[in-house]
Amino acid sequence: MINVGIMGATGYAGEELIDILLRHPQARITDICAKIDKARKISDIFPRFKERIELICTEPDIKQILAKCDLVFLALPHTVSMELVPALLKAGKKVIDLSADYRLKDTKIYEKFYDARHKDKLNLTDAVYGLPEIYRLKIKNARLIANPGCYPTLSILALAPLVALGLVETGSIVIDAKSGVTGAGRKLAEGFLFSELNEDFKAYKVNMHQHSPEINQELSKLAGKKISVTFVPHLLPLSRGILATIYVKKIQNPKSKIQNLTNLYKKFYKKEPFVRIRDEGDFPRLKDVLRTNFCDIGIKDDPDSIIIIAAIDNLLKGASGQAVQNMNIMYKFPEYTALL
Amino acid sequence: MINVGIMGATGYAGEELIDILLRHPQARITDICAKIDKARKISDIFPRFKERIELICTEPDIKQILAKCDLVFLALPHTVSMELVPALLKAGKKVIDLSADYRLKDTKIYEKFYDARHKDKLNLTDAVYGLPEIYRLKIKNARLIANPGCYPTLSILALAPLVALGLVETGSIVIDAKSGVTGAGRKLAEGFLFSELNEDFKAYKVNMHQHSPEINQELSKLAGKKISVTFVPHLLPLSRGILATIYVKKIQNPKSKIQNLTNLYKKFYKKEPFVRIRDEGDFPRLKDVLRTNFCDIGIKDDPDSIIIIAAIDNLLKGASGQAVQNMNIMYKFPEYTALL
Amino acid sequence: MINVGIMGATGYAGEELIDILLRHPQARITDICAKIDKARKISDIFPRFKERIELICTEPDIKQILAKCDLVFLALPHTVSMELVPALLKAGKKVIDLSADYRLKDTKIYEKFYDARHKDKLNLTDAVYGLPEIYRLKIKNARLIANPGCYPTLSILALAPLVALGLVETGSIVIDAKSGVTGAGRKLAEGFLFSELNEDFKAYKVNMHQHSPEINQELSKLAGKKISVTFVPHLLPLSRGILATIYVKKIQNPKSKIQNLTNLYKKFYKKEPFVRIRDEGDFPRLKDVLRTNFCDIGIKDDPDSIIIIAAIDNLLKGASGQAVQNMNIMYKFPEYTALL
Amino acid sequence: MINVGIMGATGYAGEELIDILLRHPQARITDICAKIDKARKISDIFPRFKERIELICTEPDIKQILAKCDLVFLALPHTVSMELVPALLKAGKKVIDLSADYRLKDTKIYEKFYDARHKDKLNLTDAVYGLPEIYRLKIKNARLIANPGCYPTLSILALAPLVALGLVETGSIVIDAKSGVTGAGRKLAEGFLFSELNEDFKAYKVNMHQHSPEINQELSKLAGKKISVTFVPHLLPLSRGILATIYVKKIQNPKSKIQNLTNLYKKFYKKEPFVRIRDEGDFPRLKDVLRTNFCDIGIKDDPDSIIIIAAIDNLLKGASGQAVQNMNIMYKFPEYTALL
Repeated sequence: MINVGIMGATGYAGEELIDILLRHPQARITDICAKIDKARKISDIFPRFKERIELICTEPDIKQILAKCDLVFLALPHTVSMELVPALLKAGKKVIDLSADYRLKDTKIYEKFYDARHKDKLNLTDAVYGLPEIYRLKIKNARLIANPGCYPTLSILALAPLVALGLVETGSIVIDAKSGVTGAGRKLAEGFLFSELNEDFKAYKVNMHQHSPEINQELSKLAGKKISVTFVPHLLPLSRGILATIYVKKIQNPKSKIQNLTNLYKKFYKKEPFVRIRDEGDFPRLKDVLRTNFCDIGIKDDPDSIIIIAAIDNLLKGASGQAVQNMNIMYKFPEYTALL
Repeated sequence: MINVGIMGATGYAGEELIDILLRHPQARITDICAKIDKARKISDIFPRFKERIELICTEPDIKQILAKCDLVFLALPHTVSMELVPALLKAGKKVIDLSADYRLKDTKIYEKFYDARHKDKLNLTDAVYGLPEIYRLKIKNARLIANPGCYPTLSILALAPLVALGLVETGSIVIDAKSGVTGAGRKLAEGFLFSELNEDFKAYKVNMHQHSPEINQELSKLAGKKISVTFVPHLLPLSRGILATIYVKKIQNPKSKIQNLTNLYKKFYKKEPFVRIRDEGDFPRLKDVLRTNFCDIGIKDDPDSIIIIAAIDNLLKGASGQAVQNMNIMYKFPEYTALL
Repeated sequence: MINVGIMGATGYAGEELIDILLRHPQARITDICAKIDKARKISDIFPRFKERIELICTEPDIKQILAKCDLVFLALPHTVSMELVPALLKAGKKVIDLSADYRLKDTKIYEKFYDARHKDKLNLTDAVYGLPEIYRLKIKNARLIANPGCYPTLSILALAPLVALGLVETGSIVIDAKSGVTGAGRKLAEGFLFSELNEDFKAYKVNMHQHSPEINQELSKLAGKKISVTFVPHLLPLSRGILATIYVKKIQNPKSKIQNLTNLYKKFYKKEPFVRIRDEGDFPRLKDVLRTNFCDIGIKDDPDSIIIIAAIDNLLKGASGQAVQNMNIMYKFPEYTALL
Repeated sequence: MINVGIMGATGYAGEELIDILLRHPQARITDICAKIDKARKISDIFPRFKERIELICTEPDIKQILAKCDLVFLALPHTVSMELVPALLKAGKKVIDLSADYRLKDTKIYEKFYDARHKDKLNLTDAVYGLPEIYRLKIKNARLIANPGCYPTLSILALAPLVALGLVETGSIVIDAKSGVTGAGRKLAEGFLFSELNEDFKAYKVNMHQHSPEINQELSKLAGKKISVTFVPHLLPLSRGILATIYVKKIQNPKSKIQNLTNLYKKFYKKEPFVRIRDEGDFPRLKDVLRTNFCDIGIKDDPDSIIIIAAIDNLLKGASGQAVQNMNIMYKFPEYTALL
């Protein structure tokens, strides 16, 4: 049994972490904190947790966290995490950071997209990008996990086999992604009011979203060469889930001819507990993955091009579910614990 | 052709006023203002109006309004209207106020429910409650209209025949009302975020909503005795429309026995262009009145009790549509102009 | 470990039963059937279950069910259950029936509201109404459970303390209930199309819904006298959940004066794992109970009347969750197993 | 004043035609029919039209239509229109057909995508594709209009300037389109139930939708060479509107270098009453065009590629609004009559 703390418990990712961890037989939530006017029972903030958890949500108090927790989840806004991570690591705690602070290895890019200087380059080097399907071995021994962004999680999983095997023109990858509203966090802005989003649909940050460099970094590693995708996110009038439709061109003369792309994907992800490849001609819809930690992928193999459709729940495989999956790996719990 | 100004043009009621007035052949919008950081084309604020109206939305400037307008619509927050009305009336302008400032004749009650002192008792006396079905004659000659609240509009219309004819126990009226989200205005509060309201439903201000005294005032006038209703509003996860289900007890020994309640309602509203009584056993649903200025009413006549179901579009018959209906009456335009 | 079968697995209640039982450590789904064109993997019908369950959903085959199951859940349309129950009971199986077939003790009323003759009066007598908060002792030894309807579940729980203690005028109970769309089952009718219900809201079966007699039967038992409520259900444009606002009149001279209604409710439901009473002035919203088996209740105690607001998830406490709660009681599993 | 008939009045396009034509000062609806069990007032079918139109909706009766109408709108399923058009044209009526029957000039392609033989090749030749921005002159004198499909309308308008001027690689056009549910018509299928689509999002007919050949036909004409786009439609959980995000590659050495793409679009559509080009860096969202006949277009001009975002209301510019726009052109009414 391990003791875990959740910093930033009042956001959507924090709320979801509580929900998952309450079902986890080997983890116990021992500290909950958030930027908050005054300390309140977390079940007063989220009445759905009434009679399930009695903890008080307080202002963050590092000493208390150090005293009570073995592992800390940081569900904090970007730039806040890197203020806290050094002290936590120094005290020997393990940290799973759901912010973007430790995802981008190139701090110049971080600073451009997040409009802030990086203050913890030391730990950035050691941070492991927490995508189990690619980095499981490193995650096992990691002290600091940079939990991937929601869009990068499904984009990378959807493209990894093609890119790793050099099957597509890397200059022509188009990712058209559609996300539910919780993807933006519990943000108080006019654009996120019900009456604004209901019955509406729009693109935003057209080809300039901060998740682009994260996708590019990881795909480039897999390809062994620089990849720069075209990435346009859209906002769906629904609460959770991301579905992306991805368009790629096949390279003209591949080294090895692929008989069947679907089979190739199935083989690539054969041992993965949370990636499901659909049969030929079958595509996931959002509903298939909602409230699950799965990433579902369907492939259309046309003569010159490939269309890949992938879906995840942005709060689970795209955030808190994946964070707990990482915790399970770090502590050698069965990887699916509390996630099925 | 009259020149009209809209103060508070950036809220939902203001936006709807623009939409209606752009179709009105005898009214021309000549001034648009709102509390706003800097002057902007109204079509930049609401891109749906692009290439339809070129006016700039400015900070309110009373001199400019006086110079440009014959009639002014005030789509302002409560307590702001009464700061402006005296100057407008003094300059001989007509005013249709969509706020609550001139609805409640008893300033004590106003002050209790709106938590502010009333500063214009003088004009309050002359203000006409702008419910055409009850006050059409007075509206014709009014200089200041207190445009009714959304909940009161449909509650009063639904109950007027029963209450005016003394057919029901006035102590046992229950109004269970359900409203779309625009009813609360374009309010930046966490509770109005998409992710909070989507797939949710709740009661609010349970039997203590500020529209209760407005309903009570008007029903009491109709009944000739004090009526105090039980009123519970709820928030629907949709943009617009109100539907109320109203429960009343019949009085034991009515003076005149009613043969058929539906016919009685049909007769009562016979000449009304915007009240539609459903046939026996037929009830309105929200969709029937959305984007119309109609109030639809269906009646279930049980042995001891009556259930009335009424629906309006809160932004039209419940606000801006009714405001234009009042304008049409004041200027002797056909009452339905721009409203069908 | 018990073996359970699900008949009618392709409806919303059946789907939810699978979801719950897959998390149940002491129950194993061994047979899944439904009226279906041809046998298919249940995970092809519901892709969310892919890689979680491998069973084939077949046409119902009583022999197979008898051979494979200890307990059978019937998630079938009304009138179908009573065709199957006799054989199942005769073979010594336990049965939890989610249809209405064994809920109404008076077959005349059943026949009026469900428009069909009752064909199994024998077992009707022994069937236990599966509302654990009222009938837990009987459920423990029951062979046949009549799982309550969704509206009755929350209506009875919301009113039981008042009615059992004789605190309210039994002739003036008004239940204004609002339900998500899954309440009607996976029904192929024009009225249930997305474009019809989206952005709409309506009452239906106004004071003539088939759940009225079920509510009346149980409240009458609790009161020791005949109660007939006014019940108007409405359809919300959302997938799941029911919230009811209930209006009652206090009796004039109660035997025992109640100091505090909220405390009275808290005491009444003190030991109940799935009923949560809100503090004074606090009311549940739908979201608080969604995807939980809880029934949340808030009370407004006015001088002459009481307003009670109660909420459940119609597919959990209102159907499949309660069914598993009953199973847990019958088999002496901890009552909350798989339900938290 | 012209007399118009609507065949297929009970579908979404038919309902919308009634709504528009009731506001049209120069057109009078004189016949309404549909495949229907028994004749009913159209206002009983759509209660929103109560007290606005008294016509009876009957089974189609060609004689009656010929006697009563100058122009007939066919809002019928594909393959039904071509059974009726010959008789209507022969009698000298004008016809605006909202189905696909007269859109595709190549009957082989029609027969492949609509799975039916074409029965009226004679009139197919003369039918004018009713996209006013491209074919206004021909529309003026047309007797038979093939009103464009919803996806083709916005896809063609969004791409016409680029394709007509030869600025993009015609082999790499990707159209990722997202439509509201009414796009599919009032179709009684399980997949269109509220509970299935709510909170869901999915692609369908992935790169094999019947609107692809329509887009290809028109773009090829504009380009003067064969174009075959990649087209993936998706289903949004909302009632109306289409937004498409379109990805194209610039050609390497264009004949004329373009200074500013946005200006080029503005010039191209300068005189169009219903196409609005957004300023640089500004993109339409669905809401901007809902319940309008506008097509809004925004352009992102990147070094090697262009992203175009376009939006329409599928029931207006994508169907009935465009149909009335065509009628206005045919009868020399101001083009925007009843459409603003």
